[in-house]
Amino acid sequence: MRARSLGVVVGALPTGPLNAITDVPGVLVGHTTVDDGADLHTGVTAIVPESLAGGGLPAAVHTGNGYGKLVGSTQVDELGVLESPVVLTATLSVFRAADAVLTYLMGRRPDGVSFNPLVGETNDGFLSDIRRRPITERHVLDALEGAAGGLPAEGCVGAGTGTTALGFKAGIGTSSRRVTVGGNVAAGGSGGTGGSEVTVGALAQANFGGLLTVRGVPVPVEEVVPGARRPEPPGNSCMIVVATDAPLDARRLGRLARRAVFAMGRVGASYAQGSGDYAIAFSTAPPGAPAVPDPALDPLFAAVMDAVEEALLNSLFMATTTTGFAGRTAHAVPYDRRYLG
Amino acid sequence: MRARSLGVVVGALPTGPLNAITDVPGVLVGHTTVDDGADLHTGVTAIVPESLAGGGLPAAVHTGNGYGKLVGSTQVDELGVLESPVVLTATLSVFRAADAVLTYLMGRRPDGVSFNPLVGETNDGFLSDIRRRPITERHVLDALEGAAGGLPAEGCVGAGTGTTALGFKAGIGTSSRRVTVGGNVAAGGSGGTGGSEVTVGALAQANFGGLLTVRGVPVPVEEVVPGARRPEPPGNSCMIVVATDAPLDARRLGRLARRAVFAMGRVGASYAQGSGDYAIAFSTAPPGAPAVPDPALDPLFAAVMDAVEEALLNSLFMATTTTGFAGRTAHAVPYDRRYLG
Amino acid sequence: MRARSLGVVVGALPTGPLNAITDVPGVLVGHTTVDDGADLHTGVTAIVPESLAGGGLPAAVHTGNGYGKLVGSTQVDELGVLESPVVLTATLSVFRAADAVLTYLMGRRPDGVSFNPLVGETNDGFLSDIRRRPITERHVLDALEGAAGGLPAEGCVGAGTGTTALGFKAGIGTSSRRVTVGGNVAAGGSGGTGGSEVTVGALAQANFGGLLTVRGVPVPVEEVVPGARRPEPPGNSCMIVVATDAPLDARRLGRLARRAVFAMGRVGASYAQGSGDYAIAFSTAPPGAPAVPDPALDPLFAAVMDAVEEALLNSLFMATTTTGFAGRTAHAVPYDRRYLG
Amino acid sequence: MRARSLGVVVGALPTGPLNAITDVPGVLVGHTTVDDGADLHTGVTAIVPESLAGGGLPAAVHTGNGYGKLVGSTQVDELGVLESPVVLTATLSVFRAADAVLTYLMGRRPDGVSFNPLVGETNDGFLSDIRRRPITERHVLDALEGAAGGLPAEGCVGAGTGTTALGFKAGIGTSSRRVTVGGNVAAGGSGGTGGSEVTVGALAQANFGGLLTVRGVPVPVEEVVPGARRPEPPGNSCMIVVATDAPLDARRLGRLARRAVFAMGRVGASYAQGSGDYAIAFSTAPPGAPAVPDPALDPLFAAVMDAVEEALLNSLFMATTTTGFAGRTAHAVPYDRRYLG
Repeated sequence: MRARSLGVVVGALPTGPLNAITDVPGVLVGHTTVDDGADLHTGVTAIVPESLAGGGLPAAVHTGNGYGKLVGSTQVDELGVLESPVVLTATLSVFRAADAVLTYLMGRRPDGVSFNPLVGETNDGFLSDIRRRPITERHVLDALEGAAGGLPAEGCVGAGTGTTALGFKAGIGTSSRRVTVGGNVAAGGSGGTGGSEVTVGALAQANFGGLLTVRGVPVPVEEVVPGARRPEPPGNSCMIVVATDAPLDARRLGRLARRAVFAMGRVGASYAQGSGDYAIAFSTAPPGAPAVPDPALDPLFAAVMDAVEEALLNSLFMATTTTGFAGRTAHAVPYDRRYLG
Repeated sequence: MRARSLGVVVGALPTGPLNAITDVPGVLVGHTTVDDGADLHTGVTAIVPESLAGGGLPAAVHTGNGYGKLVGSTQVDELGVLESPVVLTATLSVFRAADAVLTYLMGRRPDGVSFNPLVGETNDGFLSDIRRRPITERHVLDALEGAAGGLPAEGCVGAGTGTTALGFKAGIGTSSRRVTVGGNVAAGGSGGTGGSEVTVGALAQANFGGLLTVRGVPVPVEEVVPGARRPEPPGNSCMIVVATDAPLDARRLGRLARRAVFAMGRVGASYAQGSGDYAIAFSTAPPGAPAVPDPALDPLFAAVMDAVEEALLNSLFMATTTTGFAGRTAHAVPYDRRYLG
Repeated sequence: MRARSLGVVVGALPTGPLNAITDVPGVLVGHTTVDDGADLHTGVTAIVPESLAGGGLPAAVHTGNGYGKLVGSTQVDELGVLESPVVLTATLSVFRAADAVLTYLMGRRPDGVSFNPLVGETNDGFLSDIRRRPITERHVLDALEGAAGGLPAEGCVGAGTGTTALGFKAGIGTSSRRVTVGGNVAAGGSGGTGGSEVTVGALAQANFGGLLTVRGVPVPVEEVVPGARRPEPPGNSCMIVVATDAPLDARRLGRLARRAVFAMGRVGASYAQGSGDYAIAFSTAPPGAPAVPDPALDPLFAAVMDAVEEALLNSLFMATTTTGFAGRTAHAVPYDRRYLG
Repeated sequence: MRARSLGVVVGALPTGPLNAITDVPGVLVGHTTVDDGADLHTGVTAIVPESLAGGGLPAAVHTGNGYGKLVGSTQVDELGVLESPVVLTATLSVFRAADAVLTYLMGRRPDGVSFNPLVGETNDGFLSDIRRRPITERHVLDALEGAAGGLPAEGCVGAGTGTTALGFKAGIGTSSRRVTVGGNVAAGGSGGTGGSEVTVGALAQANFGGLLTVRGVPVPVEEVVPGARRPEPPGNSCMIVVATDAPLDARRLGRLARRAVFAMGRVGASYAQGSGDYAIAFSTAPPGAPAVPDPALDPLFAAVMDAVEEALLNSLFMATTTTGFAGRTAHAVPYDRRYLG
């Protein structure tokens, strides 16, 4: 069950109709799950903005903690442009996945000689035999080509098939918020916008250490699952993707991306040194729309933080207990009134 | 009363004897409070590492949100060295304070022609007539020369005299933790260290927006103080100083500084766009001691996050209701069993 | 004489009518020179964009080497906005100058409680008794209020009164270029612009080490001025200001600012470790104009590099031999056919 | 012929015995050249520090212009550690090469589950059919396993087989310098070192636009090679690797890396917007040696700039005229007394 169905409501802002990143118009999600019931629990998740077809989208990457192998970040920093879908997978498969994204992009632009895939990863080696590098080009293309609107699958699916977080089985989670931006704002170099309703969506591949905290209530795995063993290493990574249809340039999207990483603390992240904690933010607004002035960004920041917090909770509550590589088990968070309200 | 005296205990790590940044050997704190009982509620706080006298200390600044006028950061970024005490004050007084730090440093090095004062600020204009720029060279020198060990004053004192946070009157707060670092760690370019106990201390000038959250329990000012008005703007700033005697170079201190900003989320920070949220971290370890290897940093990260969280709570619980400029009032957090355990 | 009058022409791009930063419409320059003929050779230079009055301008700061005390950079990084004139002065006077800029800004916005002065500095201590901190609020206000269009004074004037570069007496120099941007460019997230002519202007406060190189010809002070002593330290700083009326956002301006620092190498900069080498770039284009797409930036980059190179040469060729503090002398570059073409 | 054999001597510092990056003890270089005499002119170059076997080496990456797909930079930024050989190849092959480096590293550490390959690229599509992605795992392993000391091949070899620079055929070039560091330096947080001789080596994969400038003399391809067509796009990339046995931590190596990019300007780089200009610097000094204090870095900076300038010239003078993909030709720089001294 999703957090909200369990009575866990994060913040007061309304969600979009699906409460998912796909509430942002034109944002599609696809998963390929690679799960052999034994040693492999891994996969691919693709976030595909339809409007990429018309060129790049304004985008930013924020590195909360750079212990990770994210592909493509320096060019996004330089140009402020996302020119590929965002793909997530397992650490040692990240380069094969990036090469598959090249295949995908080269097919769409037959004369192109330079492409910048953006591919993130986390280490799912606790439950999956990561050294086998099981992700193939086909897996990636399936996730990309199968990307669709609607409520994406969550939990043990795609790039979240083998991940764990905060002591429990985790996976993929998503959420969204709707906010009104604009009105009478003293600008700083930018024209103001009229008040308009926009959507902020988040999708997370959760795989990090800390003490699960549900709306302020700590949930130690050792207490709520007798005999449970906390996955090792306690660190690892968290890849967060934020999409919005609010008109924002790369600099402002960088400000949003930072808040996405800040929101990890709300569910108890320890921000371990060995965790690759990154956020990627992009805007699907049509080019030419004046960016939301900085003084008007606070509602968007609040939306990011709430959506990321709930996406992380969904990644946990939607996951199921999994036994994988080397016989290791990661337990789902039990549904318990004490911390579910 | 301090958080801990009220029963609010953050985390499981032990504190130093004073539970203050001054638990780090050789770190002194001085305050000058400028409070005329009417329009002025401001001041200066100085954090003075005694070992500065022998040259610079390894240091890093992290900019969580750069809406601020922190003086001195680019040179710390370049050289990784703190070469002045850290001074905190009010926004419009920051340059006068920096010039006073020059006076202080020039007095100590009569042949010097280049100095890099590190001076942070927050906007205390809700309670103080900030445009009067009331801070004088004498105020700054008094804070520097009066800096001492022992438990520093907290709450409405020094640079926290006029600050507010999370809807309440706030001010200066401090806390510390002791952890053991080292042992058998797979190094990355650095020699390992034997296990040894070190201290991490934090001091915060709290002045930021959000919803106060005490160990997970939200404390809305509008509910706990009937009729209270939330200070405006909801943003502003938070300056956090982290000191440690663990041997760390500038890069590693930068990793600590980032966690100090992350910890603001634990007490409910909204990370508003107009808030200058900065952390400064320095090490007092003698030069030449091999740095703690990165894989061994997690206990230090946990110590930073717990110490900053508790320092922020102390900045609130030690503050008292204050009426200041334009007749505005900021209320102290009432001591109430519902959120004090 | 200016470089061009001596036959030294940098590149093939046309200059603006004045060959100065003031060719950018609405950009004014003011100097206050503090020269007592004995120990003081210092001053203030102000670059004042008239359109600041209407709010902030898009801007960026690039730190080529952060051994410096530039005031205001973190907020420019965060918000991408210049909200004050750019003021240049001597190292130990930088905070007094910043405080004077506050006075100036507070006078223009009587209800403001937060301002971000951008004030750079270099160390003119070879020729001036820098520890006297001779710059007063009046000096700064005079430079700001006296700022005007037309060809600014160059050489030993304002913030360049006491500076030296590449072994010689240097000072303030300026130059400009005109280029056509736009046309049929494959965009990346930005709308294209039609081809239009724009101006790029540069002003430099030159004070750095290396071997003077005039269009590829090395000019060692020891050889061309018999008996000359190279100013110490060989390092120091270089503050470069780039203005343009091309529509550019902060990210793109950051790309221009980087090229401004790169251009120092063309005149022989050694990029010494103790040199604070910074560039500040801002755009005066009216808000709302679509930014020049990144693929169309190369002409602007070429214009920046040529204008900075010529501004640095002007700062040298316009300077005159000066004897100052402690009886030290810095020699002007002799006009000599061997390296002047 | 190498630049120096042609009479082109850069600077006054002595070179190492080979005048190559392999003068740094323990640094090996390997090439795999993929040249079918027709459409493929590409390859792989590997820089392998022997001491990597003992763990990571202090390292830094500097992004001069981030239009590029460099793999591995964020983790180097975070941890300051190089944990793989540096591999260079063609843009669209970079992920296959990175995956091959994984194979190499996994073979050396059979229990490892996380590795950070550092793989750079430039676009050799002017002379090579880049969309074929011709680089195989075998090519990469051959370069890595065949890496050796001695003078590396230069010009049209390895990752430089198909590159062009400044209008001419370019390729791989290398150079080195020897300098004495240390002595009586006022430290900043670090212990001083005694004076000792160290080596700085550079290797470049040159593929960028601009006007070739040999010791100050411009060499326009259109004039010196009648009928020559300048390769398009004029931009592209330059990957520079700097190795040294001087004891330096990651922060200081970052300062060196910046100077490597600055040195590109000396040979006439235009720093085009579409050029991925990166420098990677690492130190092979044994862990525990105290780092060279910052105030003593200038000789190392000079060595970096001279070695990079000469490496770039070698990459040009050692290259030979090549006709490749689509019948395009890039011409070698003719040996001509007018610019060769």
